[in-house]
Amino acid sequence: MDTIQSDNYPIYFDNSIAELAGFVARGKYTNVFILTDENTGQHCLPLLQERLGDNFDLIEVNAGEESKTIDFCIGIWKTLIDFGADRGSLLINLGGGVITDMGGFVASTYKRGIDFVHVPTTLLSQVDASVGGKTGVDVDGIKNIVGTFTQPKAVFMVADFLQTLPPRQVLSGLAEMLKHGLICDADYWNTLKVSDLTVPSAELVHRSVQIKNQVVIEDPTEKGIRKSLNFGHTIGHAVETYSLLNDADHLSHGEAIAVGMICEAWLANQKTGLPDEDLAEITAVLTTLYPPYKIAADCHKDLYALMQKDKKNYGGKINCTLLTHIGQYSVDNNCTEDELCDSLKYYAAL
Amino acid sequence: MDTIQSDNYPIYFDNSIAELAGFVARGKYTNVFILTDENTGQHCLPLLQERLGDNFDLIEVNAGEESKTIDFCIGIWKTLIDFGADRGSLLINLGGGVITDMGGFVASTYKRGIDFVHVPTTLLSQVDASVGGKTGVDVDGIKNIVGTFTQPKAVFMVADFLQTLPPRQVLSGLAEMLKHGLICDADYWNTLKVSDLTVPSAELVHRSVQIKNQVVIEDPTEKGIRKSLNFGHTIGHAVETYSLLNDADHLSHGEAIAVGMICEAWLANQKTGLPDEDLAEITAVLTTLYPPYKIAADCHKDLYALMQKDKKNYGGKINCTLLTHIGQYSVDNNCTEDELCDSLKYYAAL
Repeated sequence: MDTIQSDNYPIYFDNSIAELAGFVARGKYTNVFILTDENTGQHCLPLLQERLGDNFDLIEVNAGEESKTIDFCIGIWKTLIDFGADRGSLLINLGGGVITDMGGFVASTYKRGIDFVHVPTTLLSQVDASVGGKTGVDVDGIKNIVGTFTQPKAVFMVADFLQTLPPRQVLSGLAEMLKHGLICDADYWNTLKVSDLTVPSAELVHRSVQIKNQVVIEDPTEKGIRKSLNFGHTIGHAVETYSLLNDADHLSHGEAIAVGMICEAWLANQKTGLPDEDLAEITAVLTTLYPPYKIAADCHKDLYALMQKDKKNYGGKINCTLLTHIGQYSVDNNCTEDELCDSLKYYAAL
Repeated sequence: MDTIQSDNYPIYFDNSIAELAGFVARGKYTNVFILTDENTGQHCLPLLQERLGDNFDLIEVNAGEESKTIDFCIGIWKTLIDFGADRGSLLINLGGGVITDMGGFVASTYKRGIDFVHVPTTLLSQVDASVGGKTGVDVDGIKNIVGTFTQPKAVFMVADFLQTLPPRQVLSGLAEMLKHGLICDADYWNTLKVSDLTVPSAELVHRSVQIKNQVVIEDPTEKGIRKSLNFGHTIGHAVETYSLLNDADHLSHGEAIAVGMICEAWLANQKTGLPDEDLAEITAVLTTLYPPYKIAADCHKDLYALMQKDKKNYGGKINCTLLTHIGQYSVDNNCTEDELCDSLKYYAAL
């Protein structure tokens, strides 16, 4: 498959590990670090070691969203200091979105910026986190509240890593792929609807990355068109944070975004003219793929409070990216607390 | 005096507080925050309040380099979250280099970047920290190890703030002004030598800002000419950190840089052809202005270890910016441990 050219960096799909080895060799880096978690360290690192040898230092953090905090960043910065990492160092982020978001932030700020590349190992990080130059970590439980816009030097997609993912991890990434279709490619949405999505094909992943890449190249710092990617995320992020704080077995990112897309499709039907049949179709596809999440009426207030803290807001107003049709979006739709709560009720009544 | 145009932002010297008030009014910010410390909050904030009124929230940290840590940043990020700061917010950094460096870092990473401006209140921050787009904080006692290159939206120089500075604070800024002359303007050095430097005139401050600004505009991310500004800083930073960790009444930045400039002038005499008479002149001027600092032979090892952790190094080598003449610099001069220690001995024997 074609290498996709992003904002001054390539996204490789074929022979990616060999491409990574070549990249490292050409870069003449003084130090090479691999940031990973214990799962990825066990399952994916050996493939890299076959090509890279042992010419790197390993930094391992605990797996899970709980690690994506500023406190873990401090630990990684201290490790880089202790290893004598200088400005000629490279950080390879090998893992899911937690690793790529956090590793990107650490690298973009260590000594005011060292080179980093991503080797995303989950479907979600391949189709979403690893492309677009957003880095970020959580502070005080608020997702991605601190971060930078910094592009990696390259991204290496390895299709093999997706073969052994647990089904919930696949569903988590799939939500973003479905979103890519919903916001700007009805044909792609229609293809996804009828595809075997147990393990999405490399071609489908490639198409999602193409869509996301087109959007972020046009608008790297989220002033305009990039807001299209926020469809499902105003409510979805709040649901995700709420679940992380309250549920023992909390929702994955994509599971929460699926909830958010159903609610925001309902809002779109109310506010931006999304036809009834499109709302029905989106609801049917998503509720078939994703298990229901119970949202009690007494947590609407908490969810609304979380939405208010979302970094996408401006001037105290909550603005949603909605749809006008499947495949067409509309940004900056101000939604009231009542409207947002009504959309949660629509979801709860399904 | 002329407004200096930097990398897409103005540096005001005349009617600066009125300019600030106009800037804030034009910006239509959703929230305005002023970051300051208790000293500046007492002495300088009232002047701003006369013009800005009370349309801002105040964030105050303890005065002193000890505050410039990632932990204080976490406190400021949390405060911004609690105040509901969104992407349309402005952060006004009112203070010395600690406030401008740390405030710049906090703003450049909060929600992936909000607008910020500097109102530097010390001589050092006027001639150095507030110009050039470097932000940074300390981690694990290592100075500015984490930061970004992000430009402020404007800088407002208020000459009145310098009138009441304690003499040691003036000396701290003066070291950077002397450095500006030494690296690229022999005439300016000669003017400084014969000026009353109790409170440097606004014209001298303006000239220093001009010099620094020319350098950073040419090389915003320190790939080349900007390294000229590191003269005195390889040894000076190590001395500063050492003093911060070991001395009850520790050296100011400029006092440490004065030590560093003497040592590195000696290295320049050995390695890059700085004439004997230039070394003698630099040593005489600096030892007249600055009190001696006692460096025992048994701390050379500690100082060398600190130099190795300096972010300017590359590939394990220590590279110094040296002089070839007063007014001319030479970058990337690799210095051995023996040479660096010998330069410390030269200083100790004065």
